[in-house]
Amino acid sequence: MDNKEPKRTQISEMGRVALLKRLFEGTQYNNSAAQVVQGRIPDKAGRTKDVNNFLTVQKTMLEGIDFDLTYTPLKHLGYKAVLLALGGIYAKCFNPCSLMFSLGLSARFCVEDIEEFWKGVLAACDEHKIEQLSLDLGASMTGFNIAITACGVQSAKTAATVPAVDNTCLLCLTGNVGAAYMGLHVLEREKIAFNKIPADRVAEYVQPDLSKYKYILSQYLSPEINPKTVEQFKEAKLFPACGYFITNGLAAAVKQLCDEHNVGAKIYLGKIPIASQTFSMAEELNMDAITAALNGGDDYKFLFAVPVQEHERFHKEFPNVDIIGHLCRPEAGAVLVTPEGAEITLRAQGY
Amino acid sequence: MDNKEPKRTQISEMGRVALLKRLFEGTQYNNSAAQVVQGRIPDKAGRTKDVNNFLTVQKTMLEGIDFDLTYTPLKHLGYKAVLLALGGIYAKCFNPCSLMFSLGLSARFCVEDIEEFWKGVLAACDEHKIEQLSLDLGASMTGFNIAITACGVQSAKTAATVPAVDNTCLLCLTGNVGAAYMGLHVLEREKIAFNKIPADRVAEYVQPDLSKYKYILSQYLSPEINPKTVEQFKEAKLFPACGYFITNGLAAAVKQLCDEHNVGAKIYLGKIPIASQTFSMAEELNMDAITAALNGGDDYKFLFAVPVQEHERFHKEFPNVDIIGHLCRPEAGAVLVTPEGAEITLRAQGY
Repeated sequence: MDNKEPKRTQISEMGRVALLKRLFEGTQYNNSAAQVVQGRIPDKAGRTKDVNNFLTVQKTMLEGIDFDLTYTPLKHLGYKAVLLALGGIYAKCFNPCSLMFSLGLSARFCVEDIEEFWKGVLAACDEHKIEQLSLDLGASMTGFNIAITACGVQSAKTAATVPAVDNTCLLCLTGNVGAAYMGLHVLEREKIAFNKIPADRVAEYVQPDLSKYKYILSQYLSPEINPKTVEQFKEAKLFPACGYFITNGLAAAVKQLCDEHNVGAKIYLGKIPIASQTFSMAEELNMDAITAALNGGDDYKFLFAVPVQEHERFHKEFPNVDIIGHLCRPEAGAVLVTPEGAEITLRAQGY
Repeated sequence: MDNKEPKRTQISEMGRVALLKRLFEGTQYNNSAAQVVQGRIPDKAGRTKDVNNFLTVQKTMLEGIDFDLTYTPLKHLGYKAVLLALGGIYAKCFNPCSLMFSLGLSARFCVEDIEEFWKGVLAACDEHKIEQLSLDLGASMTGFNIAITACGVQSAKTAATVPAVDNTCLLCLTGNVGAAYMGLHVLEREKIAFNKIPADRVAEYVQPDLSKYKYILSQYLSPEINPKTVEQFKEAKLFPACGYFITNGLAAAVKQLCDEHNVGAKIYLGKIPIASQTFSMAEELNMDAITAALNGGDDYKFLFAVPVQEHERFHKEFPNVDIIGHLCRPEAGAVLVTPEGAEITLRAQGY
């Protein structure tokens, strides 16, 4: 650890408006609270080529509920907050174009903290080619409070190409689930261990070697979304009928899909991708890897429903995506099918 | 006071998803987290008549910072939260069409509390003809936490009609300022008085008669926005060059206008509308009515810049709007001109 005390500038020293100016200095963005997105896409000759539809997604992240600053670096948190909102835009086959942040800051936050958080935000905005970005800073009684709104556009042509959801669609997953939840549990375990150290011995504390948990930690702390998600569908001329961004567990996403589209769903336990690191960590912590995969949360993967007749083409175009089940009539509900063929009703938080 | 204990149903008893279903039951809304707004407005024959541009505004309200539940009825708070977000849409001459709410709930919140809040939200949505509404419920460590996103549309035709901001524009205000801040201070005074009552004498407490403060209390607790704001501009074929919704004090709105449009501004103290009730309450509380008018906050009025050549027509079409000053070259800054002609640099929170 560095022995120098890091600099801590009080926000009141600088002033809210001056801090906002500094955060946007040297970026491509001007901090306009009113973000206008044009409905028309002109072609090179200035004629109307296509018309945009708009999608808005709002998310919040509250300290102590959705994240813990004892083990979440602020830069990672900023990056992840952007993805949380963008995921909902990509899932619906829209391309994100603008983002708004409102931060509620408790008194212990300093200028350098916000700058660190903002670095993560800017990195994600750059990767995802966000055109407009705004930030509002306010006070909070306790904890760090993040509200994010993302807007995306979709051309009317793309909208017309998206197939309808029907109860024969296949369910596809863009990566393994449960790993982030296991990463979170490693961090929670270390936090508890650290808190047990008596105050007079904290100086002797040596950061434990967490390198063997690298994969699951990265799934929790620095998930990624492919910014070309929608472009790839466009190029393949193969759009999913609907999509969900998995942040609250796979089971919750499946149940939400069933609710919103009035269908049932069967997912096959043997088909759900779970990383070997998730299994071994679950064993180490005496937890159930399957529960982590279904209900863990923070997966940042997509669940897509794809028309069954596109089955083979889909497999060819997107070999890294797993088919985990299919939709069915609503009366069947949302169920998990075990390798033995038993059907278990899916349970999810909030239901 | 009613002696019956009001019913208090725990949210966990009902489940988050069941509560959400109940809140949307019987309304015109389905709670879809992904709100799509069409970019194209078709005419009756189904041809494209016009193309929409799209505006998004995000706001947050945190308990203990932005409101105090000891004296703010939840229904009023819900209504006011909607207006807070819609104000930013109307100010830019867009018509609001969709709203999203995310609520962070501390453990002391029950089903009946949310229902009460939601009544206010629905009333405001009805008044302002909101087409899409969504709600997400989560936990909060402390306090009630509100995030709101509003979306609005503006036809490309209207967008083309909005005049440019120049440094000769007049500054107009849609109502008096400072009254809400005085209303807040009445409520704060009563809260302090109540808190001084010893615990064993609280039962004897008689709600004070606040009827003489009715006007300033209503300005704080139940402000209103005319839902025809944009329609009136459209009918008069007279759009402001730019607009701001005043929530954080008139001075802050003027300074923001100057910042965002690279202009200066002069506002005339003698022209700023202040209600007589604001003056008399300021006297009673030994406060300065002018400071309340400039920096008080919660005014929920609009500041518009209107081309000077439209001066007379503007006065005729909108007799209830006051002209309080004009824009000028940026070097002049944002100043307040006293009746004696002295120029004082405007100060505002955050600057």
